[in-house]
Amino acid sequence: MKAGIVGATGYGGIELFRLLREHPEIEAIHLYSSSQAGEDFTNIYKHLNSQETIVLEELQPDVMKFELDVVFLATPAGVSRNLTPDLLGGSAVIIDLSGDLRLKDPEVYEEWYKKESVSDHILKQAVYGLPEWNKEEIVNAKVIANPGCYPTATLLGLAPLIKDRLVEPHSIVVDAKSGVSGAGKNPNPMTHFAHTQENIQIYKVNQHQHIPEIEQALHGWDEAIEPITFSTHLAPMVRGIMSTIYLKMKEPITESELHERFSSYYESRPFVRVRQEGNFPCTKEVYGSNYCDIGLTLDPRTNRVTIVSVIDNLMKGAASQAVQNMNLVFHFDEQAGLLRLPVYP
Amino acid sequence: MKAGIVGATGYGGIELFRLLREHPEIEAIHLYSSSQAGEDFTNIYKHLNSQETIVLEELQPDVMKFELDVVFLATPAGVSRNLTPDLLGGSAVIIDLSGDLRLKDPEVYEEWYKKESVSDHILKQAVYGLPEWNKEEIVNAKVIANPGCYPTATLLGLAPLIKDRLVEPHSIVVDAKSGVSGAGKNPNPMTHFAHTQENIQIYKVNQHQHIPEIEQALHGWDEAIEPITFSTHLAPMVRGIMSTIYLKMKEPITESELHERFSSYYESRPFVRVRQEGNFPCTKEVYGSNYCDIGLTLDPRTNRVTIVSVIDNLMKGAASQAVQNMNLVFHFDEQAGLLRLPVYP
Amino acid sequence: MKAGIVGATGYGGIELFRLLREHPEIEAIHLYSSSQAGEDFTNIYKHLNSQETIVLEELQPDVMKFELDVVFLATPAGVSRNLTPDLLGGSAVIIDLSGDLRLKDPEVYEEWYKKESVSDHILKQAVYGLPEWNKEEIVNAKVIANPGCYPTATLLGLAPLIKDRLVEPHSIVVDAKSGVSGAGKNPNPMTHFAHTQENIQIYKVNQHQHIPEIEQALHGWDEAIEPITFSTHLAPMVRGIMSTIYLKMKEPITESELHERFSSYYESRPFVRVRQEGNFPCTKEVYGSNYCDIGLTLDPRTNRVTIVSVIDNLMKGAASQAVQNMNLVFHFDEQAGLLRLPVYP
Amino acid sequence: MKAGIVGATGYGGIELFRLLREHPEIEAIHLYSSSQAGEDFTNIYKHLNSQETIVLEELQPDVMKFELDVVFLATPAGVSRNLTPDLLGGSAVIIDLSGDLRLKDPEVYEEWYKKESVSDHILKQAVYGLPEWNKEEIVNAKVIANPGCYPTATLLGLAPLIKDRLVEPHSIVVDAKSGVSGAGKNPNPMTHFAHTQENIQIYKVNQHQHIPEIEQALHGWDEAIEPITFSTHLAPMVRGIMSTIYLKMKEPITESELHERFSSYYESRPFVRVRQEGNFPCTKEVYGSNYCDIGLTLDPRTNRVTIVSVIDNLMKGAASQAVQNMNLVFHFDEQAGLLRLPVYP
Repeated sequence: MKAGIVGATGYGGIELFRLLREHPEIEAIHLYSSSQAGEDFTNIYKHLNSQETIVLEELQPDVMKFELDVVFLATPAGVSRNLTPDLLGGSAVIIDLSGDLRLKDPEVYEEWYKKESVSDHILKQAVYGLPEWNKEEIVNAKVIANPGCYPTATLLGLAPLIKDRLVEPHSIVVDAKSGVSGAGKNPNPMTHFAHTQENIQIYKVNQHQHIPEIEQALHGWDEAIEPITFSTHLAPMVRGIMSTIYLKMKEPITESELHERFSSYYESRPFVRVRQEGNFPCTKEVYGSNYCDIGLTLDPRTNRVTIVSVIDNLMKGAASQAVQNMNLVFHFDEQAGLLRLPVYP
Repeated sequence: MKAGIVGATGYGGIELFRLLREHPEIEAIHLYSSSQAGEDFTNIYKHLNSQETIVLEELQPDVMKFELDVVFLATPAGVSRNLTPDLLGGSAVIIDLSGDLRLKDPEVYEEWYKKESVSDHILKQAVYGLPEWNKEEIVNAKVIANPGCYPTATLLGLAPLIKDRLVEPHSIVVDAKSGVSGAGKNPNPMTHFAHTQENIQIYKVNQHQHIPEIEQALHGWDEAIEPITFSTHLAPMVRGIMSTIYLKMKEPITESELHERFSSYYESRPFVRVRQEGNFPCTKEVYGSNYCDIGLTLDPRTNRVTIVSVIDNLMKGAASQAVQNMNLVFHFDEQAGLLRLPVYP
Repeated sequence: MKAGIVGATGYGGIELFRLLREHPEIEAIHLYSSSQAGEDFTNIYKHLNSQETIVLEELQPDVMKFELDVVFLATPAGVSRNLTPDLLGGSAVIIDLSGDLRLKDPEVYEEWYKKESVSDHILKQAVYGLPEWNKEEIVNAKVIANPGCYPTATLLGLAPLIKDRLVEPHSIVVDAKSGVSGAGKNPNPMTHFAHTQENIQIYKVNQHQHIPEIEQALHGWDEAIEPITFSTHLAPMVRGIMSTIYLKMKEPITESELHERFSSYYESRPFVRVRQEGNFPCTKEVYGSNYCDIGLTLDPRTNRVTIVSVIDNLMKGAASQAVQNMNLVFHFDEQAGLLRLPVYP
Repeated sequence: MKAGIVGATGYGGIELFRLLREHPEIEAIHLYSSSQAGEDFTNIYKHLNSQETIVLEELQPDVMKFELDVVFLATPAGVSRNLTPDLLGGSAVIIDLSGDLRLKDPEVYEEWYKKESVSDHILKQAVYGLPEWNKEEIVNAKVIANPGCYPTATLLGLAPLIKDRLVEPHSIVVDAKSGVSGAGKNPNPMTHFAHTQENIQIYKVNQHQHIPEIEQALHGWDEAIEPITFSTHLAPMVRGIMSTIYLKMKEPITESELHERFSSYYESRPFVRVRQEGNFPCTKEVYGSNYCDIGLTLDPRTNRVTIVSVIDNLMKGAASQAVQNMNLVFHFDEQAGLLRLPVYP
């Protein structure tokens, strides 16, 4: 297998490189960078040094689409929109880690991303790559829209209840907290250490572009769901997302019925771990891994359900989920190259 | 003025000492510690060293209640419950930073704190010390129950809407995040650096003892309010609380009406700063100060209001609010000794 | 007293503003910014908001030098070099927080700063503002070169031994660690949170521009001192410098003689606190204060002395030391406006 | 291969478990805990959960020494001293991660560890497991004393110069900085988050028990080396050690000769990466990996060499180095199970 990574010098790109380099089915990795082509990748990221030189290559979609088996696009919003059309039509499968191919309705994309959408006919080919819920479509896909970090944590926490239309449609509030790496590697005032340390910041209130992505998936499962409240906070840490989800059930449910529902939904999904009653995960318990850990409870005082879902935003929220999707498309073991336990402490 | 601090070696106690030592009206500070009486305080906390020796004294309530003008109880839950009766009846005003005197209903205290409550007749004397809403009662109080850290941030964010009974009674969800200092100075696995760093943890889900405290105040303002959902998270930082509050209004309101309501409510309260439309505070912007900063917005998609309220949990959430209460009781300038800007970065 | 701050929007500038605003002798503060003149300062830094609007002013040296009593230059290297000549000749005292006026030899400045030096005759007027060792000159100065952060910690740790020429001239090694705020507020890859967190970085090895500043002061005390080894590290924290100093004595000395020497040297200096035998300071013990805490010991196995000196780099290493210098020049109490205990935890 | 881990619930133990579980040659892992035998390991450490139950076993040295191929002792100082004699004499190889078997002279152990030493005849069997310098002995060992974290970083930084006796014997000063995980998982005031965050602390000045370990290895290479100055600091991070090493050469050397010496020494050692001239590693560049990265330079002003050596203290400083030693003893590929790139950011 030959894999290519476009945007290799971003945080998503270097994590993909790390995973693919240790993946049992990958023989060669090509790295592409528009701004740093010709440079030695291990000279830019010295932590990746391992005796070999890896030259960043110029993008050549015409060649890549025939010579590569899979191309990962780990690029900022707005890039794969332009690149995907050129990469289609060969043998390469495309896995896009950006938000460009996720929203089925171009108008919604344009409203939330403030950019022009890719054409409708490409959006139609793109399969939303949430393996725990979409496996059947993924295995046959040529283009995969890898989910966003917040949607991954949030949708895995909501799905077992929404799928069966058990939730009051207007009751969903999601309060999400993320580490700083989600903002990417370009330095800016909001990610300056002196500003971020000892700080919790809320940002893009009611305007985060992951809101329509979450709602689109929810509507796929239960079209009655109304717009959700979804807030994003920056916590003083590098990695990790916690989505704390609040909702009301249409019908009364017991604590143990709730847990049973989640446990049975996820028992065959190796990367989702549901906690026992009374136990809740923290982000560090999935650090560096492809796991999503979920805890939940019902408050008899308010009749609200609280669901806590945690992931590593660069792994299950980006790079390792992309590898999981690749495993499915190529009929590898779903866990190939991903059998790594979280790094603790 | 002579002030005494019981529990001087805890985090609340050392902050009180720092504030009182620089307070223009305080001449003498006595520190009390049951476990470390006789030791030099500045030897335990070397950062407080300043040429003088300060010996920790044995508790003598009978003497203290006549010789001191004010006694701060910066003790864990369960201590002031026993101590307050002995300290009453002299000239000293009591300001209790623990939760022992806050809940008017002894049964509620016992349910949430799992301890026996102080007697009813002492609870009746205790005034809830939230100066922005309770000034009239505070100025005449002999016993003040200083509010908890989470309730301070949350109630200041909710009050302008609840006071006028504008909020849907069953709609309130509060997602709160706190720094680690709120857990006190005794080392335990949850505050171990190696566990806490790079981590967000949720704890005491639906069981935090600040829930009845918040609800009691809300009911004082609007008795129709139903039980709230209130979650507490530990963020990898030392100081700071952010309460992100979600609610629905009974009647439609515009964004600018919302802001005007908050601005006019707080314009005469020097320690609450309301942000302009589109701007939200972060915890670092109140670090080391007595400020509570509030930002808010209405989401037209969901009709939910989001209110973000931040404080320094050891300051406005504990020590500096206690000093603000002292200022009111003794008819000092409300801002005396508290005119310190946040420390940034 | 009217004070002006040039470069008010940098980290040094905002700390100066905070200190001067609470200083008992300062009536008015004018803030200057070349890039943001006309803007409201409290709009840029919302944590400083306190009901008043403070408009950033255009620099007008001709006016400033007559209307202000003191001008603080909190600007990057290379700015005060140009500005100082225009600000001289009026009534205003100039306190420069940058490195432009510290090195007496223009060639040394040019070698280490890679910029053209200010003229010799201005350098001659500039007094090095280390109050613990230079008080007599400072009280008569019109231009003060406020010491760098690393030199402050290092020189206060070395002075009691160097002044009496007790140290082997070629034996000095200083290993210094600093928080990230020392790098200023402009975002760059080295201060990006995702890079800095969980990281110790060494930088400018043997090339830091504070090396000649330290050596110049040491030579003023003992001209036999040879070039020192001085290394700078970035630690994952916002504030604080620790200089760990290693040296050998010319003649044998006992542990208690060592301590006595430091204690007696500093007993009349209110801002230097020498620890007792066996005790060493950490940076958090001076956080937010003007203190320099020093611990030291002699290793009988190696005959090396280890001296640990800690400061808050933005306070004693910049802003509060500048205020201390102002206090001396204007014959205020040396501690005026600086009687603040460290903020802990 | 059957492996056992004694002290599995400590930080060293859980890292060993993580590494062994993904090691290609390990079929079964037995975990032992004196205090928590009978409990489910994945219930104590929920991040390790992966569908299987792993019961912590009671220690039975008589059985273990025959049924296991390798036993890792990840226990505090003082435990393997008692345990090793009972584990010898069977088929199991013992790899001890504590300091009990490292010092060849029992008196030195007793002086620095303040405990009774294991008997001389066991010390004689123990091979110091620094694979880059001791491979020949390691491959034949039955008992391996895995090096301490500080010694690993420091010795790898010093060896290429000491081995050839090029260093002035009395000139060595090592200033080491470590993350907090090195202090172990038991909570104490020094590792409390509120104390450690925003803090650099020096500890055990001139008294760290790793000093004699380093000196013993140095004397093995050059017996003329005199006692070294070695200081340890706690930085506000979880993982990582940086040893900044200062020394003087006996004879003049050029910068490029220096680099060539290090490069040629380490070119056949896969886990030591020497940086090019002008480049220095930071701890994050080896995070989660078995690498030791080294940068160095000569200062022509002082004739001192500065060497910067970084490791992950829980990996190359403990668990992964133990696995590297196991690989050598059992003639596996030295890199088996250790081909993991650092986790960045």
